[in-house]
Amino acid sequence: MKSEDMTNQHPPLIVEVTRGKAEQDGDFVESRHRCHAAVVDRDGTVVRKWGDVDQPIYGRSAIKPMLALGLVESGAADAFKLGNAEIALACASHSGEPQHVDRVRAWLQRIGRSPADLECGAHMPYNEVAMRDMVRAGIEPDASHNNCSGKHSGFLTTAVHLKEPTKGYIRYEHPIQQRLLGIMEQLSGLDLSHAPRGVDGCGIPTIALPIAQTAMAMARLADPQGLPPARAAAAKRSVTAMTAEPYMVGGAGEFCSEVMHALGGKAALKPGAEGVYAGILPELGLGICLKNEDGAGRGCEVAMAQILVELGVLSAEERAKLADRLTPPVVNRAGLKVGRIRAAADAAF
Amino acid sequence: MKSEDMTNQHPPLIVEVTRGKAEQDGDFVESRHRCHAAVVDRDGTVVRKWGDVDQPIYGRSAIKPMLALGLVESGAADAFKLGNAEIALACASHSGEPQHVDRVRAWLQRIGRSPADLECGAHMPYNEVAMRDMVRAGIEPDASHNNCSGKHSGFLTTAVHLKEPTKGYIRYEHPIQQRLLGIMEQLSGLDLSHAPRGVDGCGIPTIALPIAQTAMAMARLADPQGLPPARAAAAKRSVTAMTAEPYMVGGAGEFCSEVMHALGGKAALKPGAEGVYAGILPELGLGICLKNEDGAGRGCEVAMAQILVELGVLSAEERAKLADRLTPPVVNRAGLKVGRIRAAADAAF
Repeated sequence: MKSEDMTNQHPPLIVEVTRGKAEQDGDFVESRHRCHAAVVDRDGTVVRKWGDVDQPIYGRSAIKPMLALGLVESGAADAFKLGNAEIALACASHSGEPQHVDRVRAWLQRIGRSPADLECGAHMPYNEVAMRDMVRAGIEPDASHNNCSGKHSGFLTTAVHLKEPTKGYIRYEHPIQQRLLGIMEQLSGLDLSHAPRGVDGCGIPTIALPIAQTAMAMARLADPQGLPPARAAAAKRSVTAMTAEPYMVGGAGEFCSEVMHALGGKAALKPGAEGVYAGILPELGLGICLKNEDGAGRGCEVAMAQILVELGVLSAEERAKLADRLTPPVVNRAGLKVGRIRAAADAAF
Repeated sequence: MKSEDMTNQHPPLIVEVTRGKAEQDGDFVESRHRCHAAVVDRDGTVVRKWGDVDQPIYGRSAIKPMLALGLVESGAADAFKLGNAEIALACASHSGEPQHVDRVRAWLQRIGRSPADLECGAHMPYNEVAMRDMVRAGIEPDASHNNCSGKHSGFLTTAVHLKEPTKGYIRYEHPIQQRLLGIMEQLSGLDLSHAPRGVDGCGIPTIALPIAQTAMAMARLADPQGLPPARAAAAKRSVTAMTAEPYMVGGAGEFCSEVMHALGGKAALKPGAEGVYAGILPELGLGICLKNEDGAGRGCEVAMAQILVELGVLSAEERAKLADRLTPPVVNRAGLKVGRIRAAADAAF
């Protein structure tokens, strides 16, 4: 990685949670999140950074846009005539609304498979309305409700298309995962054969990459020139699918979906478990990776918002429209606004 | 506050979340929580500390044992023949199971009131089984399901007993809240008239006290000698009620309830929103207050567990029995253990 001052210690981007009197933002900081973040271009130049960007992190679901490349570049997406919605789902941590679940099931049917072939496990939808509807109807979740069902459907589709064994596609040794390792190595410029490795929430391997290299990988999706042609085309198609179908990537009320929807193609955003967030900025040719040290989603959403604002990605109009997503109010049980979540004043460049 | 080295900067108690291969604890630290904590006696001597214990924090629901004193010392608890279960509920953030909700409703009936008189707002039970049962039955939550309904019933009972207005009992200016301010001032030894103030989740004022003074207040509940006799008796009765009815204070599967149940009177524990935890140790005459900087509950539970272990509160048998509460496993969607939450090795004394 090139950077003008890689040796300098940069302070993390601090996100503050305030609490005060009713209908005031409050100047008392009740909690704090410490976010480490890098904005990097496709050549590895660190354009902006906060905290320790050389620390390895598990990218978790934030790097799903990278993991979806295999589906497209293998020819599987075309063979099964997948559109933006399915490719967006392959990049998604969806909230389990009917729009997601129905689409995943139809997709699986198209490849001659069912939710029982997905190895991600089952859980109730994150979306509260969808969850309550299921409880009310006495329906138990299956693997299609899992927020990772689109990613897993992508893996399964690729294995079916390439006539590889489908059972065990989540295992590190399976060709699906081995090819993804190769994609991650090319995009990050690292040899990952000895990188720290863990099991993700949905059972696939998660590999630790430094924050800065993860951001560079995202920049190579934003500006894929220099990648092999099939991979470059897959990158363009995945990013286009995400921004064209933002509600497939997350869901109603989700930060990533709402911001992508408002920005219309200027940014593809993807959160991951344990406070990771990735951003792909096609117009600027930049990638963003950030990690909230404590793993909380509220911290990394507000940090991502701050970085997008400071990079000038949002117009004044978009900032006004998204104000309650950029610095969300803290609301109590009675619906009173009693505080705000915001970047600390000294988080500015 | 007296302390041998108040001027020294102490590192916070770090709680690590690891992730690795299946059925291994994993030596890769994925996320970290920074906890500030003090163990203090009734005279204000800081016995142990981590991080900055002079920082003011909102005690939130962690200081409910202090807020319940008014109910007992006013004579209201006796007048309405409240037992351990009701007094434990006044100290509780319960999870909304039928055992809690039914008891609160019966209590309100005894004072001639109903859930509509509680000013805490309504929310679905934290307990998932209870929540699903309600959704399935098409029942919307009322104020009795609010995790603070016991505390609010205590306030209401006191106002009814003292023939004070009941409407607006959550307001800072109401005699209920003003007396609580006096109780907090006596137990913490501070003039709180100009302390930072916010609105709590349930609508009552929350006042910022330093961590060390909050711990001292808890020590004065643990060892109430020196307090006015009615207050000392109320302290003893509240702490006894909490440890006698641990599942009224939290609920099935809750850390505080399970640990209190296992320790049989050696510790009264109370969590609060935004990562606060209070501990009352009657046998040792000590109080504990800790704040996880980022507000996450998982961080402060493990930090509290570590402090209890290091203070020698748990026998070897109790440590073994509570192992998965003290350092909980991280479990993925398929039920695989893929990591652990634990205090960092250098968190030891």
